[in-house]
Amino acid sequence: MKALVLAGGSGTRFWPLSRQLRPKQLLALEGDRSLLQATVDRLQPLVEPQSVWVCTTRALADAVRRQLPEVPPEQVLAEPMGRNTAPAIGWSLRSMPEEARAGVVAVLPADHRVADAAAFRDALERAARAVEMDDLVMTLGVVPRWAETGYGYLELGEGLGASDGGVRRVARFVEKPDAEAAARFLASGNHLWNAGIFVFRGTMLLAHLARLQPELARGLEAIAADPSRVDALYAGLPADSIDYAVMEKLAATGDGAAAVGTVPLDCGWSDLGSWAALAEVLPKDAGGNAGRGAVGAIVAVDAGGNVLVSDGGEGVVAVLGVHDLVVVRTADAVLVCPKERAQEVKRLVAELALAGREDLL
Amino acid sequence: MKALVLAGGSGTRFWPLSRQLRPKQLLALEGDRSLLQATVDRLQPLVEPQSVWVCTTRALADAVRRQLPEVPPEQVLAEPMGRNTAPAIGWSLRSMPEEARAGVVAVLPADHRVADAAAFRDALERAARAVEMDDLVMTLGVVPRWAETGYGYLELGEGLGASDGGVRRVARFVEKPDAEAAARFLASGNHLWNAGIFVFRGTMLLAHLARLQPELARGLEAIAADPSRVDALYAGLPADSIDYAVMEKLAATGDGAAAVGTVPLDCGWSDLGSWAALAEVLPKDAGGNAGRGAVGAIVAVDAGGNVLVSDGGEGVVAVLGVHDLVVVRTADAVLVCPKERAQEVKRLVAELALAGREDLL
Repeated sequence: MKALVLAGGSGTRFWPLSRQLRPKQLLALEGDRSLLQATVDRLQPLVEPQSVWVCTTRALADAVRRQLPEVPPEQVLAEPMGRNTAPAIGWSLRSMPEEARAGVVAVLPADHRVADAAAFRDALERAARAVEMDDLVMTLGVVPRWAETGYGYLELGEGLGASDGGVRRVARFVEKPDAEAAARFLASGNHLWNAGIFVFRGTMLLAHLARLQPELARGLEAIAADPSRVDALYAGLPADSIDYAVMEKLAATGDGAAAVGTVPLDCGWSDLGSWAALAEVLPKDAGGNAGRGAVGAIVAVDAGGNVLVSDGGEGVVAVLGVHDLVVVRTADAVLVCPKERAQEVKRLVAELALAGREDLL
Repeated sequence: MKALVLAGGSGTRFWPLSRQLRPKQLLALEGDRSLLQATVDRLQPLVEPQSVWVCTTRALADAVRRQLPEVPPEQVLAEPMGRNTAPAIGWSLRSMPEEARAGVVAVLPADHRVADAAAFRDALERAARAVEMDDLVMTLGVVPRWAETGYGYLELGEGLGASDGGVRRVARFVEKPDAEAAARFLASGNHLWNAGIFVFRGTMLLAHLARLQPELARGLEAIAADPSRVDALYAGLPADSIDYAVMEKLAATGDGAAAVGTVPLDCGWSDLGSWAALAEVLPKDAGGNAGRGAVGAIVAVDAGGNVLVSDGGEGVVAVLGVHDLVVVRTADAVLVCPKERAQEVKRLVAELALAGREDLL
């Protein structure tokens, strides 16, 4: 199996720790390894680093190569610019050697968390068998642990294929639900979280792209024909997600020969979508404060339920009498907001951009 | 008039901005001048810097001299250690030239704020006239602006003296009251805040000390007789406040010849006793956030009533959706606590001391 790791993200949800040139996937939010490194680590021994491709942006390519010295540097592919996941996956597959993309390829976001790597690899293997035996396009669906409204869902259909791996048809890709629908999904047992993890034969995915997204496919062919024109051509590719461009359409129209299948994944997965999501997986003190920082870098008195992060140097985060806050210290910035509003951190980043503080973005 | 500025304090209420070697009086909490510098500035032209003495500790003496280059360096007196205000005042008066302490001396804490310096000097002048004409020991009493429970009060007695400056006898020094008593004091119009500012003839204060605190007076004489023994002798001085050692006793027993008088002071005085007290005097943004920091160093979205301080370098304090908090950033530390618990910051400093973080104290 080959792996294609998507590492071009540039989100602001972990500001001030994340910056334009140090986005989430390059950060070590737990432990010592960055999310990108952990993504590659957990594939072994199923996929060795020599079989890993990484799609990132030009601005990040050097940093990615430094973080992944065991991945051949020419397999770190640098997009001229971010154009969403359909161009990234299509262009990366076209950039891989033909024999690589003719095999089974797993597409993995670089910025997710997995607690149980063995369970994760097991699900990948079951998906790979379904690809090989039944020519399916597979996606891993996470067994929901609560009625999350921040994720999309996969609605399950009938059993599929001969691989005997518990594969179910994806009847429908469901957008982020409201709280009532999310509760219904959780109770039904018939929905999985859409984790954006796919397993397919590369050549087959490109064939689906050619059929479903002819404009994108023509652009990719033009780039392949004259790579020197990549900057101009890439900027013109339709910037759609792979879900929208291919998966939802396959699920809606696919017959037995072009269906999307899924296997359930139960491995302590999180997309670490915000400081609040990180809090759920960090170690906690007696007061329920989730902390990240050197020993002695966090002091909490009469404080509970906070996320306390101290990064850079010998400094300290000291809190007294506060609850359910996010407090993040870096060498040059401090963030304070309620945990329940951690999704809005981008508003602060936008303010800083307006104020001309490029040094902090 | 001479001035004796008490600048030996080592409080922790403005941590992390204040440190053991950079205590509150050396900080510029508003504007560009430290509280110590502002204390000397506002005396002019009533008391020129050549007529100012400063009592501080050995650890701080160099920093005090650097901040006050216009004060003769030998007039910055360095106590071997802090022993409260009675030893500091007694020893400083004994260390001044005889002709200086024979005149009128104003004793001033180095870490208070005064908005109206002219009104402050006017009150000092009225107090000085009462000292010269009626041999009183004078204290300035601040006209209360709210029912503060964090200050001691002066209970007013009858009019005193011939100076015609509205001098009233201090009938009693009142400890910090509870909320009910504070409200009663405010309504009565018969109480002033005790600001710890005194005006007296130095020789007369020493005579009162000799009578009321003979042990302290003997210690001071022994130091004067053999200054080389100051370290050992100073450590043995009774560590009382001047209020307890002299003022309260004079007020309780003083007859016409040994009374404590007061003139009211209405000059925007604050003792800046905490981050919350500082918030009341700092400029505020539209959301009511009191800020201190360089332009662009503070970003607040959907946040109000906070005290936001960014100190050191180009860094930023960014808050979202929080209210009535204290958030202070220095190069090596961050403090977050509710404004109403700003008095408890010392608990965090104590925790850091226990954790062996001397670098942050």
